[in-house]
Amino acid sequence: MRSLGITGGAGLALGAMSSIGLAPAVASTPRRFQAPAAGDLIGKVKGNHSVVILGGGPSGLCSAYELQKAGYKVTVLEARNRPGGRVWSIRNGTEETDLNGETQTCTFSEGHFYNLGATRIPQNHNTIDYCRELGVELQMFGNQNANTFVNYTGNKPLANQSITYRAAKADTYGYMSELLQKATNQGALDQVLSKEDKEALSSFLTDFGDLSSDGRYVGSSRRGHSAEPGAGLNFGTEIEPFGMSDVIQGGIGRAFSFEFGYDQAMTMMTPVGGMDRIYYKFQDAIGMDNIEFGAEVSGMKNVPEGVTVDYVVDGKSKSITADYAICTIPPHLIKRLNNNLPSDILLALDAAKPSSSGKLGIEYSRRWWETEDRIYGGASNTDRDISQIMFPYDHYNSDRGVVVAYYSSGKRQQAFESLTHRQRLAKAIAEGAEIHGDKYTRDISSSFSGSWRRTKYSESAWASWAGAGDSHGGMATPEYTKLLEPVDRIYFAGDHLSNAIAWQHGAFTSAQDVVTHLHQRVAQTA
Amino acid sequence: MRSLGITGGAGLALGAMSSIGLAPAVASTPRRFQAPAAGDLIGKVKGNHSVVILGGGPSGLCSAYELQKAGYKVTVLEARNRPGGRVWSIRNGTEETDLNGETQTCTFSEGHFYNLGATRIPQNHNTIDYCRELGVELQMFGNQNANTFVNYTGNKPLANQSITYRAAKADTYGYMSELLQKATNQGALDQVLSKEDKEALSSFLTDFGDLSSDGRYVGSSRRGHSAEPGAGLNFGTEIEPFGMSDVIQGGIGRAFSFEFGYDQAMTMMTPVGGMDRIYYKFQDAIGMDNIEFGAEVSGMKNVPEGVTVDYVVDGKSKSITADYAICTIPPHLIKRLNNNLPSDILLALDAAKPSSSGKLGIEYSRRWWETEDRIYGGASNTDRDISQIMFPYDHYNSDRGVVVAYYSSGKRQQAFESLTHRQRLAKAIAEGAEIHGDKYTRDISSSFSGSWRRTKYSESAWASWAGAGDSHGGMATPEYTKLLEPVDRIYFAGDHLSNAIAWQHGAFTSAQDVVTHLHQRVAQTA
Repeated sequence: MRSLGITGGAGLALGAMSSIGLAPAVASTPRRFQAPAAGDLIGKVKGNHSVVILGGGPSGLCSAYELQKAGYKVTVLEARNRPGGRVWSIRNGTEETDLNGETQTCTFSEGHFYNLGATRIPQNHNTIDYCRELGVELQMFGNQNANTFVNYTGNKPLANQSITYRAAKADTYGYMSELLQKATNQGALDQVLSKEDKEALSSFLTDFGDLSSDGRYVGSSRRGHSAEPGAGLNFGTEIEPFGMSDVIQGGIGRAFSFEFGYDQAMTMMTPVGGMDRIYYKFQDAIGMDNIEFGAEVSGMKNVPEGVTVDYVVDGKSKSITADYAICTIPPHLIKRLNNNLPSDILLALDAAKPSSSGKLGIEYSRRWWETEDRIYGGASNTDRDISQIMFPYDHYNSDRGVVVAYYSSGKRQQAFESLTHRQRLAKAIAEGAEIHGDKYTRDISSSFSGSWRRTKYSESAWASWAGAGDSHGGMATPEYTKLLEPVDRIYFAGDHLSNAIAWQHGAFTSAQDVVTHLHQRVAQTA
Repeated sequence: MRSLGITGGAGLALGAMSSIGLAPAVASTPRRFQAPAAGDLIGKVKGNHSVVILGGGPSGLCSAYELQKAGYKVTVLEARNRPGGRVWSIRNGTEETDLNGETQTCTFSEGHFYNLGATRIPQNHNTIDYCRELGVELQMFGNQNANTFVNYTGNKPLANQSITYRAAKADTYGYMSELLQKATNQGALDQVLSKEDKEALSSFLTDFGDLSSDGRYVGSSRRGHSAEPGAGLNFGTEIEPFGMSDVIQGGIGRAFSFEFGYDQAMTMMTPVGGMDRIYYKFQDAIGMDNIEFGAEVSGMKNVPEGVTVDYVVDGKSKSITADYAICTIPPHLIKRLNNNLPSDILLALDAAKPSSSGKLGIEYSRRWWETEDRIYGGASNTDRDISQIMFPYDHYNSDRGVVVAYYSSGKRQQAFESLTHRQRLAKAIAEGAEIHGDKYTRDISSSFSGSWRRTKYSESAWASWAGAGDSHGGMATPEYTKLLEPVDRIYFAGDHLSNAIAWQHGAFTSAQDVVTHLHQRVAQTA
């Protein structure tokens, strides 16, 4: 047996770093994380090995968790009164005053929630492994659904029509296969395809596109039925396909590749009860003695004894000095701290630009998407500002549920972030009703929205590195590379210092790299 | 808003039957099922309105449930000691002696199971609605997974290699897009594509196939990584694509269309704890006073007073006479009953041919598919006799789980059904190890297999109608059509009399049609 094309988990990546010989110390950490061992410290190295960690989000809590296991004395300072940072599950009682000055209090029914930040986990991400280690129960997250809709605005063919993914796929794949079959039959590709290639391709296309025996696409049961097949002579009524030119010019397949993405392809997972469950488990493991909530950091300085961090809790100024600090505060906010960071570091931090993203959750007292549209999870896709409508992956078939009425980024999110919640809701409902009909406007119990650019302590959805384009990582700009190294005894960690920006995996791998480097330095095991 | 391509649930199909004016009475039942009303009977029609139902599978229990709600006196006779028929969840304590004479007792760990029969529910099927009505908790069923493997035998390129679906898709879609782009650029399709079509198509193909700026497929992050991207300068290592000719001739995309199927496309659902949960809920609703388990029916006859059914319980002969009978016994087994059915009916029943299908479940004491292959649900696909390996959709990240080591049909199942369980297991492990490696052979706690052709009271996986080809329904052969009508006071019901053969939906719609017809006759409401 050979095993090719196997996607690697952390366990498969061991020893695959030979190609990065030029990487600095932190980056050349072996890629399979080896948690630091308490045996390296105890009785071998003097001191109490204290580390203060600024921020109780994924990278901060992961750092604290791993260091504590190895015998370090950790102190996590978190400005919010909850763990998780941008992992934030909105449920009954969630209260937040945003930077627009508006206060919302969530009144969802007991047990209902949505994740305003991270909501899904790819199988390959180490987030899965922390869930295993911490005992966080996982369930499947529906990241694609044949019954959700695509609906795009404009004046192209098929514009402003709600078309199921299954119908859009059947027609797009059907015509695509017909066209390639036709070109092949005409000999147009004889320079690149052998006779054997052509035969095999034809066989594939017939199946892939559901082509007729003469190589044409004339519709398919894959599209769905206007009358469901049932018993007896009820064969169901198939829905006629759209025309080829309409399908192509309408661009109804523009979102298909989403589900092929390395980090979006099914199976996707999510914790039962909300993504924040992970961080409450981290909190339990670290212990509340070692975490201070409501701690707003105001200063961070390298000093001869280590690192001194000034912060305010309940209006009272406090200070802590530890051997080391791990700073997971969003990069564009660090300059606000009273600090003695070198100017090149401040410049590097400035290259991490904030970005816009946000969601709005609506609790409906009737699961119309299930009973009427036969939709169980997944998302409808649109080019409107709402971008997508995400359907709940829990409480199936019950009497109520929370729909994420938008999850948009960039300019589409900016269209929401300055609005009041009431205005956001009105806009979300208006756009959603254009896709799912009048029922979208009824049976609404309550709602809650958040925009990360206007959320205190974050002020950004994720970092966008100047000069790195739209990539969510993978670009080693000079500024990014510079921040991988500690500044004396201050380390920086977070998903922004990874090639999985906006993913928990990025935050965890960054934390693991920093922990490894710090421990090597302390225990001199490198 | 227009809503085109929306796939219909039962609720959407109302009034869509105008095209079947020629259908006989049972088939012309309105397609939105209207449960018969008790008010139609009580105080209006004399008699106790008794119905005896032969078989406690989906169609039998659904019939009994609906009739009882309407005020009928129902008696369900079920030969087995459990409800559900071919819906059968195998768990600790399951004991079965097959028609090979071998007895197996399942020793899976508490809470672990697999469904030997029906295991998934499409969103559009009315099975979902019965789960809602009966309070059966649903969860998502993973019917596709980018991390499971395809691995095909033979001497074609890429044979006997385990390739992730994600890699197989990336390469197949990439080359397919490149070829169509090339043909289009050459003008080979100018007779069917306008300039606007070509521009839109090119834009789609670039995205769909992840093509380079010059229209070529040169690999994609979609394939996965040999080293997982992480923090710092760990960009991950992408895996090189296979060659175009190898991809095409290897046929590694032969199974892709499965997930486009009307009844297989995600989202698929399944009850928490096993598909049989549905039938225990039916049993609760109907009441054990009205169900007799262990009742082997030996005779069924129309008599002047109604229908007399003879049966044996614990070696004791019993008889019941009711106004009507609904016979859900598999069609090919009915002729064994002492009966007075007309010869044309017996001939029609004979046209429903039995088929082979079965599964084998292995409990592993280590979830290697998760920790090593990063597989959470879904199935690996092969042309070996095992056909597929299905990974559990429950107990994620726990310490053990049940893998369905084969789910095969037809000839591939016939390769298993005559074997002893030990032989089946050996063959399943040998073939599975060719796909998932040596770890497939280790950490096995226990196993249990079943072959429907060799399972008492079923002796078939599903009916295959002579003259209807391989279709799972939708073919109105004369024999099929004949059985839609009652024989005097005996009705036939089951998925074999539907256009959703082998689906619970087929059994339920058949039951609903029969119930509607019978009630119209009794209450004269037609």
